Amino acid sequence: MNSVRVFAPATVANVGSAFDVLGFALDAPGDIVEARISATLGVRGVRIVSITGDGGRLPLDTARNTAGVSAAALLEHLTHRDPKSYGEIGLELTIEKGLPIGSGLGSSSASTVAAVVAANELLGAPLSRMELIPFAMQGEQVACGAAHADNVAPSLLGGFVLIRSYTPLDIIALPAPTKLWVSVISPHLELRTQDARKVLKRTVSMDLAVAQWGNVAALVAGIYRNDVALMGRALEDRIVEPERAQLIPGFFDAKEAALLAGASGCSISGSGPSIFALSDSGEKAQSIGAAMTQVLNKLDLSSTLHISRVNQEGAQVLARA
Amino acid sequence: MNSVRVFAPATVANVGSAFDVLGFALDAPGDIVEARISATLGVRGVRIVSITGDGGRLPLDTARNTAGVSAAALLEHLTHRDPKSYGEIGLELTIEKGLPIGSGLGSSSASTVAAVVAANELLGAPLSRMELIPFAMQGEQVACGAAHADNVAPSLLGGFVLIRSYTPLDIIALPAPTKLWVSVISPHLELRTQDARKVLKRTVSMDLAVAQWGNVAALVAGIYRNDVALMGRALEDRIVEPERAQLIPGFFDAKEAALLAGASGCSISGSGPSIFALSDSGEKAQSIGAAMTQVLNKLDLSSTLHISRVNQEGAQVLARA
Repeated sequence: MNSVRVFAPATVANVGSAFDVLGFALDAPGDIVEARISATLGVRGVRIVSITGDGGRLPLDTARNTAGVSAAALLEHLTHRDPKSYGEIGLELTIEKGLPIGSGLGSSSASTVAAVVAANELLGAPLSRMELIPFAMQGEQVACGAAHADNVAPSLLGGFVLIRSYTPLDIIALPAPTKLWVSVISPHLELRTQDARKVLKRTVSMDLAVAQWGNVAALVAGIYRNDVALMGRALEDRIVEPERAQLIPGFFDAKEAALLAGASGCSISGSGPSIFALSDSGEKAQSIGAAMTQVLNKLDLSSTLHISRVNQEGAQVLARA
Repeated sequence: MNSVRVFAPATVANVGSAFDVLGFALDAPGDIVEARISATLGVRGVRIVSITGDGGRLPLDTARNTAGVSAAALLEHLTHRDPKSYGEIGLELTIEKGLPIGSGLGSSSASTVAAVVAANELLGAPLSRMELIPFAMQGEQVACGAAHADNVAPSLLGGFVLIRSYTPLDIIALPAPTKLWVSVISPHLELRTQDARKVLKRTVSMDLAVAQWGNVAALVAGIYRNDVALMGRALEDRIVEPERAQLIPGFFDAKEAALLAGASGCSISGSGPSIFALSDSGEKAQSIGAAMTQVLNKLDLSSTLHISRVNQEGAQVLARA
């Protein structure tokens, strides 16, 4: 095997009430990374040979590219463990961006996950998906200044994934509710995660915190029960959403339109500006998407709409050659 | 049918991280209430004829007794709905306290639940268990100044019960994990819920709040997965437990002893002073209970130990006559 081509899906993190602890994967869109064993003798480590679909914005420098950093960390780890097998290997990555940068759909995570899965497969799959998470998190550190797992973990594993704790890392794969449809609209404007973090308050009232963890608990129950109505009302977030919504033109109108069109719940995807809405049928998901699009159109804000179910298996190997 | 005798179980609320939103029912101990149709013609409403096991501390006055208030509210509601069937009925309640007052095991809730279930059965079971919750909550209002549902709901329904919201009331019955054993130790001292509320902070840091709702989410996942280890580590509560533990002599030593004896997790039951620990076998639950008892004994603090599984069906009709 000389090359592996992998698709990694977009993800919705900060799922309403479950700020910073929960994320889920979509079937589409996503990024594709092809990893190839370098044909040049004596070349070691990871090299990025091309990036497409990013408008020339992402660095080819391995040390500054999220996918490069993660794949290099994985190769280093394997080399340290087994120098004979991995010490002389050079990897070349080709990155095809399907996700817009800074949209709140886990764009950096998708590239990172596609890269580590492709590299791992190419090297004989020595690590499990769960074991790949810490390597993918190193890419997140480069992309947004914090080694979050709430995008990379669902992109790797599929379904909903809960990050209970970072020290120690405790990640719990939840089911992928089969009845759930997701309408995600991405306004064509960019929000940096760092900026979206700045609007957050440092403290929160005890009453709001209790209401929030009641909702988070109900969201997890809804996921296990495959109960879309419960998931929808459990999204209610009175702490983070009101702050971040200020950064997204038309958010409250789009949310109202989504709920009127039959959404069970609606909130901000990641740190925005994408907005996601939950419903229980593909038809409803389309109407909801159309309603949100109309709201943004009225504000002269162009956008891209995606209708998807929850991804069941995470990143997917497309081809081996 | 002239009388119905009902057992309602003790409950553990404020389950570690899930402060104010989650409770679960034990198989034992509990309270028993017998409801009887008054033989005296022309007597209406609810009358408490005797209370035993309370050391004479609970009021016989219906309007000041949690069980009396709840049963009267239920009878009033039914009378309002159907004056012909219920308007002329007088109910007599006999209360047998099995639970110590102010111990953090839902003592007032158990009497209240036993009373409303007994009254409802005696009147032909016009309401479901879920529909009885608001009436039982009226008793809680009398007992502790707030109409909480996190003890009455699990005592009525069994298993773990989540209170997502009070306005509107949104109560979600979670499963009763069959692998779970509970050791509950009640030191012989009394803590008033009101006093235990006073030590709570009004605000909490965002970081702690996020960690808490990650744990609450994991606790619900653990309940659905029947995963005792996950439930145990998800109990971690860095907000409420550190404050309330100050009111319970020996809490931290008892908790350490429980964990050393094999508990998956340990925290304060309700607003204390009872302490509960989770484990995955009856044998472990006994050792854990013994270890906690020893700690309290060393402090010259007498206590009562209960070993129980999670109650599966809630309050139980013992006899109809």
